[in-house]
Amino acid sequence: MTIEFNNTAPLYKQLYDFIKNEIKKGNMKVGDKLPSKRNLSAHLSISQNTIETAYQQLAAEGYVKSVPKSGFYVCEIEEFSAPIEIKPKRSPENIQEPKPKQYRYDFRTNTVDTAFFPFSTWVKISKEIMHDENRELLKTTHPQGDYHLRESISKYLHHYRGVNCLPEQIIIGAGTEYLLGLITQLLGRNRVYAIENPGYPKTYKILKSHNANIKFIRLDEDGLKIDDLARSNANVVYITPSHHFPLGIIMPISRRMQLLKWAHQSADRFIIEDDYDSEFRFNGRPIPALQGLDVNEKVIYISTFSKSIAPSIRISYMVLPMPMLQRFSDEYSFYSSTVSRFEQYTLFRFIQGGHFERHLNRMRNVYRSRKDALIEEIKKLSFGEKIEIIGENAGLHLMLRVHGRLTENDLITRAEKVGIKLYGLSEYYLAPFENMPNNVVVIGYSNYNKSEIAKAIHLLNKVWT
Amino acid sequence: MTIEFNNTAPLYKQLYDFIKNEIKKGNMKVGDKLPSKRNLSAHLSISQNTIETAYQQLAAEGYVKSVPKSGFYVCEIEEFSAPIEIKPKRSPENIQEPKPKQYRYDFRTNTVDTAFFPFSTWVKISKEIMHDENRELLKTTHPQGDYHLRESISKYLHHYRGVNCLPEQIIIGAGTEYLLGLITQLLGRNRVYAIENPGYPKTYKILKSHNANIKFIRLDEDGLKIDDLARSNANVVYITPSHHFPLGIIMPISRRMQLLKWAHQSADRFIIEDDYDSEFRFNGRPIPALQGLDVNEKVIYISTFSKSIAPSIRISYMVLPMPMLQRFSDEYSFYSSTVSRFEQYTLFRFIQGGHFERHLNRMRNVYRSRKDALIEEIKKLSFGEKIEIIGENAGLHLMLRVHGRLTENDLITRAEKVGIKLYGLSEYYLAPFENMPNNVVVIGYSNYNKSEIAKAIHLLNKVWT
Repeated sequence: MTIEFNNTAPLYKQLYDFIKNEIKKGNMKVGDKLPSKRNLSAHLSISQNTIETAYQQLAAEGYVKSVPKSGFYVCEIEEFSAPIEIKPKRSPENIQEPKPKQYRYDFRTNTVDTAFFPFSTWVKISKEIMHDENRELLKTTHPQGDYHLRESISKYLHHYRGVNCLPEQIIIGAGTEYLLGLITQLLGRNRVYAIENPGYPKTYKILKSHNANIKFIRLDEDGLKIDDLARSNANVVYITPSHHFPLGIIMPISRRMQLLKWAHQSADRFIIEDDYDSEFRFNGRPIPALQGLDVNEKVIYISTFSKSIAPSIRISYMVLPMPMLQRFSDEYSFYSSTVSRFEQYTLFRFIQGGHFERHLNRMRNVYRSRKDALIEEIKKLSFGEKIEIIGENAGLHLMLRVHGRLTENDLITRAEKVGIKLYGLSEYYLAPFENMPNNVVVIGYSNYNKSEIAKAIHLLNKVWT
Repeated sequence: MTIEFNNTAPLYKQLYDFIKNEIKKGNMKVGDKLPSKRNLSAHLSISQNTIETAYQQLAAEGYVKSVPKSGFYVCEIEEFSAPIEIKPKRSPENIQEPKPKQYRYDFRTNTVDTAFFPFSTWVKISKEIMHDENRELLKTTHPQGDYHLRESISKYLHHYRGVNCLPEQIIIGAGTEYLLGLITQLLGRNRVYAIENPGYPKTYKILKSHNANIKFIRLDEDGLKIDDLARSNANVVYITPSHHFPLGIIMPISRRMQLLKWAHQSADRFIIEDDYDSEFRFNGRPIPALQGLDVNEKVIYISTFSKSIAPSIRISYMVLPMPMLQRFSDEYSFYSSTVSRFEQYTLFRFIQGGHFERHLNRMRNVYRSRKDALIEEIKKLSFGEKIEIIGENAGLHLMLRVHGRLTENDLITRAEKVGIKLYGLSEYYLAPFENMPNNVVVIGYSNYNKSEIAKAIHLLNKVWT
């Protein structure tokens, strides 16, 4: 055995690698005895301890076995001799991650302006909670999330959203997408899900990923059509009643009551209420959640801090009705909470200290003035009277219906030429149906200030006329 | 209309609530006209603006509708008159969360000692990254997680675990449980999963929650039996090869090669390698991961920072083989990353700065000395020679097989009498089979120091003899 030792790795590691390779190459065969430690030590001029370490590692991994009072022998590993197809090595070139296209102005809906986030407050709270007396926070928390945070969320929900719940009903999770997946598990197999069409494409994708049976339900001016829902055989319906995504419809009380009645007609029916951006209503108070009208434990309420704080803070929550809570607690509480306990506690203190409310009030003003600027700029356009503004009373996006000869596709491709990314309403149609409008674009305006909005919309003058 | 205003809420809110309740109670009926703003203003001595705000809110929610140049009229909400069953109100009493039983010493396996966590370093890094220039961190990150973190994980995996991967193959997620759920989505329907029996009960529960078809595979002294696997019809196998949970078996190279050969025999076969506590091997170097031996893109490698840093920091990761990576990128990259970007970046800096390696080295020493103390104390027991210690070479738990007349149940209930919680091996048998040992307990020793271990084990002298 001749080894040229170098300085790049410990000696035992080099000896171990050498023997391992000899076995793999077939130069050392099943049953071959390794040299005795004494002989090899003299031969290689390394200590017997070094050799022992290498031999023990080979034995632990099963390349050799130790026979007491005899020595170490090569084990049988037949597959090394069998042909194994070697695929070309991976290289970054063949798995490059696609880079999203960059625009001067991208009016996407899934963003918020993070420039106003109170970093210093958040850091101050983080510092306060991360000290030795809080080592408890390093341990696992309740599967539904930190009780303090759930308590502050339940107070907030009661006060601002008209949601009627106890902290015990709340489950904190790493994003609405995760919670929707959990809901599909909780509701079990053989469910038929109804979703709004048009609607939120991610919801469709998530339900599909969980092999759910999905029905698309059309909307009228009051939102989801109850007759269609009843005919669909669905027993779970996902809706955005406070501010339909993307149409902006606020579901009126009569439709809400019909929906609750539908759910009440069968024990296995449930409603998933996604209240994703209800904090941002600009005239009057927020529309109370459907959950608050539900006296029959039919509504699963779900909401997020992604819009109200920042998308990178992955904290969402849901309120479970009692029958589902029981099921969660019995069968699914083995799932650990998916949100870092530090961030749960930071958020709790952020809410408790009134910072969340202040931040929301501030952002409501910021976004209102942006929305007003957007509408004003659109009206100023030379063809402004041809543009109908839809769904502008709540949320962080609105729609433009452009009457005239330009189609949705024209509107978008022409805007792209001046560096503006707009989104066609058709993207949100999960299944096509007759009479889909073909001249509507969706604009998420949260990420640009008034002067940016003015510049962007002004650019449309050139290309949309 | 007679309202007694109070000081607890804004006037418009009180008026809005009053009218809403009148409608709900049926005192105001469909088609009824609300009093004109001028008349009501004079009658109630409040401003017309206040009334306008209340009326607009009622209109936004659909209780009334505005008829131009005429006034506001009550809408039809037929369900208010329909009988709706009112369930008893929720109270904390009927949904109390069960409190886990407390013991003097709880030797559970799913914990680590957080006393050594370098809080001050973590806080220092957090402070450094949370400042205005890093507002970028508030925006959404790549669906697979922050690239910097994935890069540092891939370097760590290459160096310490023999895992061969590019950062592009890594997906960061909020816990191994979440990632396992994602794997079931990626692998799609009609899969048959093989899991080790005994094995990790959570894996079974997670797969079951995702409606997977599950087969239990027995183990011999080298781990999972390949013959049984081949006969099972499974096309995905979940294993813990570096340190079987809970038996502690290190799967030898020959069995690993057989397993890879099994996977190679069919295009739809995959291996999920859960490397949950491989950082903690106390004699020699860690056992290289199975993934490093795989040249055919068959192994999904999964690991976590829960054991190596802290359970409350929910960061796990998986390495996808190329075919699955493609599928993820094409069909599942709509899922947002489930881990807070702040914590991803903090962890990246923690690894990059060498703190992770230092922390691991320190913990390895801490846990080694605890394991040694545990073994020493067991040998000191008056009946020590009857106790066989199994699986002590790696990981944060070991097993005691107690020869004599006491059964597993005796061992556990007697230990409980002196405040010690031990776990029977039978808890980890996911399906019963013949010749299950009935005198083995599993001890997770990571959470107690040497003197606590000595005290706890000494207590067994009284009850186990």
